[in-house]
Amino acid sequence: MPLDPTRTLADLKELRALTADDNGAQRVAWTDTWQKARDWFAQKIKALPVEHHHDAAGNNWVTLPGKSEKSLLIGGHLDSVPNGGWLDGALDVLAGLEILRRINEEFNGRPPITIRLVDWADEEGARFGRSLLGSSAFAGTASIAADRIRTDRDGIRMEDALRRCGVEMDRFPEAAKEQKYAAAYIELHIEQGPVLERMGLPLATVLGTKGVERHNITFHGQEAHSGSTPMNARHDALAAAAKLALEIRTIAKKHPDAVCTMGSVKTFPGIVTAVVGRCETTIDQRDLDPTVLATMFREAREASERFAGEERCTVEWSRIWNIEPIAFHPALLDLCDQSIREVAQTTHRMPSGPLHDAAEVSRAGVPTVMMFVQSLGGISHNKIEDTRENHLEQAVTAFDLLATKTIAYLS
Amino acid sequence: MPLDPTRTLADLKELRALTADDNGAQRVAWTDTWQKARDWFAQKIKALPVEHHHDAAGNNWVTLPGKSEKSLLIGGHLDSVPNGGWLDGALDVLAGLEILRRINEEFNGRPPITIRLVDWADEEGARFGRSLLGSSAFAGTASIAADRIRTDRDGIRMEDALRRCGVEMDRFPEAAKEQKYAAAYIELHIEQGPVLERMGLPLATVLGTKGVERHNITFHGQEAHSGSTPMNARHDALAAAAKLALEIRTIAKKHPDAVCTMGSVKTFPGIVTAVVGRCETTIDQRDLDPTVLATMFREAREASERFAGEERCTVEWSRIWNIEPIAFHPALLDLCDQSIREVAQTTHRMPSGPLHDAAEVSRAGVPTVMMFVQSLGGISHNKIEDTRENHLEQAVTAFDLLATKTIAYLS
Repeated sequence: MPLDPTRTLADLKELRALTADDNGAQRVAWTDTWQKARDWFAQKIKALPVEHHHDAAGNNWVTLPGKSEKSLLIGGHLDSVPNGGWLDGALDVLAGLEILRRINEEFNGRPPITIRLVDWADEEGARFGRSLLGSSAFAGTASIAADRIRTDRDGIRMEDALRRCGVEMDRFPEAAKEQKYAAAYIELHIEQGPVLERMGLPLATVLGTKGVERHNITFHGQEAHSGSTPMNARHDALAAAAKLALEIRTIAKKHPDAVCTMGSVKTFPGIVTAVVGRCETTIDQRDLDPTVLATMFREAREASERFAGEERCTVEWSRIWNIEPIAFHPALLDLCDQSIREVAQTTHRMPSGPLHDAAEVSRAGVPTVMMFVQSLGGISHNKIEDTRENHLEQAVTAFDLLATKTIAYLS
Repeated sequence: MPLDPTRTLADLKELRALTADDNGAQRVAWTDTWQKARDWFAQKIKALPVEHHHDAAGNNWVTLPGKSEKSLLIGGHLDSVPNGGWLDGALDVLAGLEILRRINEEFNGRPPITIRLVDWADEEGARFGRSLLGSSAFAGTASIAADRIRTDRDGIRMEDALRRCGVEMDRFPEAAKEQKYAAAYIELHIEQGPVLERMGLPLATVLGTKGVERHNITFHGQEAHSGSTPMNARHDALAAAAKLALEIRTIAKKHPDAVCTMGSVKTFPGIVTAVVGRCETTIDQRDLDPTVLATMFREAREASERFAGEERCTVEWSRIWNIEPIAFHPALLDLCDQSIREVAQTTHRMPSGPLHDAAEVSRAGVPTVMMFVQSLGGISHNKIEDTRENHLEQAVTAFDLLATKTIAYLS
């Protein structure tokens, strides 16, 4: 039986019926609904001559052994955010499943190289605030000591939630054993942004994942009475923050794909009758080019100090988190371009702003590439997340071509 | 015995010792500590030939009958905010007490007109969020239906808290009886702002209380992923709000005494990884000139709509509260100027940004004026609120002169 992308759509809808409610997908990692999705998936692969196991970090591996142990990895994640969409993560796994079916059929259960489908554990980090959990264990970049004490909103510790699912965090390092024979990794994902829709394109080659600089920035001024304090006598922490909120846009717009976002502003005392004495903000800066990212970070910092001075305030920065840009593999980028062109005539290369498990796999030294398919309205992490069905079918077809070309490249 | 301003200082310190803790004054209206302050005050006036009663709104009236029933009212408030200062409100009452002593002495208990000292109930509104409570009942502007259901942070209803202190809110309108024979009202208060300290002046004549326009302004944009949403595809509600936070300063600075304050900003979803989809802000605008106030309100509204358009957002305004400007009485302003000049050689006229009970008394048609004394650092509603002792003594002396000149003016 040849590749049948309509089967991927049917699988996606079956999974949605099983694991979504009126508010969207509820496959949050380490919950019963997520386990139900994985049980359903285990049934789906039963017809294939595959080996199936969970590694020490809970990653779900399905291996179709080939003539060579050299392995092509195809990955995604069945977990979702609460009230999530039907495609984020699941499309990758179920497109991979269809490709596995096609390859098994074509090579009579014995492809030239080994094909491994991986459903990463807890990509979203929705419950404990730690994303890319399983793939970081694979890559050997897990932060076990910091993560085990994380708690969910009911106070349940991460370590205990994982143990209930049969995963001991102390054993995370053993997941790195799965790197053995990994020769390439490919991942298909919805874009989760508006770029392809605006360009009228179904598919793109992903250049890599942008580096991220994420900081808390707090301006300290002087709380004062809104009625009795003349305008020229104020130390208005909000004014300094407002200037920065606008300036980071100018800083980002100097570079074609860079983004800077002030996502949170908190004012203290935060009452209608007081000049803001303290203003706590966050910024998130991203770019694929490490030099651009470093420049934006420096410019935002300098601007914040200039604005603090102008408003007779002070400013302090503290890093929340950062990650370097991850550039995908040049040869695989070319194969991805070719695959897309064969299906959609024209392609586009773009960086990914959101992080993906592919970033961790690439950090582990495995040649990696991702393919994006258009998102409607650029919306994801929401029940209205959607992609046109013909685009989904094109995506499965192009992704299968990428698998074929990658197998040839590795052989 | 002539006027002795040092006695006012001693009284203020005695009251502080009785009703403050390590965090400042705790004379919050309708609490036991406030009652203790009033009991102490009742003892203080026992030596004087005065009539003493609480009106139907809990205002505390001390009357020294004169040859005429025509009355000079001298007012203040013993209540404070939690963790408040030693002067806000209490200075007015205790300076008034010293003036009552002096007048009683000078006229052998029978001044030419009646002198009434009033300690207004709940000027601060600290517990239930309703300021000028007692003086509004006096003025006939009370909002009983809206106020009785207010609750404090323990869920106690205002109506029940007042009943515990012997005050029935249904009887508030009876407090307007105290307007009878009222011919003038004078009030001394700390400035609570930095203007006099910056000018190097101890005292000022207060022109009136500024009108206030207080609004909630909410910008609606589009929540979006901070990583996947290009800068030019955003509908950033925070950007629109930031522009307004800066523009209201330009709007205010066109007028010498006007103030505009954005005191609160809330961002939704308010997380580091999302473009702000909704931004809730407040603004508070004040000026003594009703035309200026109306212009500022219109300009801020127009600017908010312009900025919403620029950022592809929408904006909605809802009024929290407003009050018209209250101009004090021209003849009393002159008497206040003269009194200050006799003590401090030079005077200054300024509007009050904060509201005071004097505004309600003036609304009731009673000729009114206020005198300000310098605040150190412009700080009040805080335990570090302070004024130099020589300035306090000058204030009591000048305020006593104002009482004498007002009695002569009324006679």
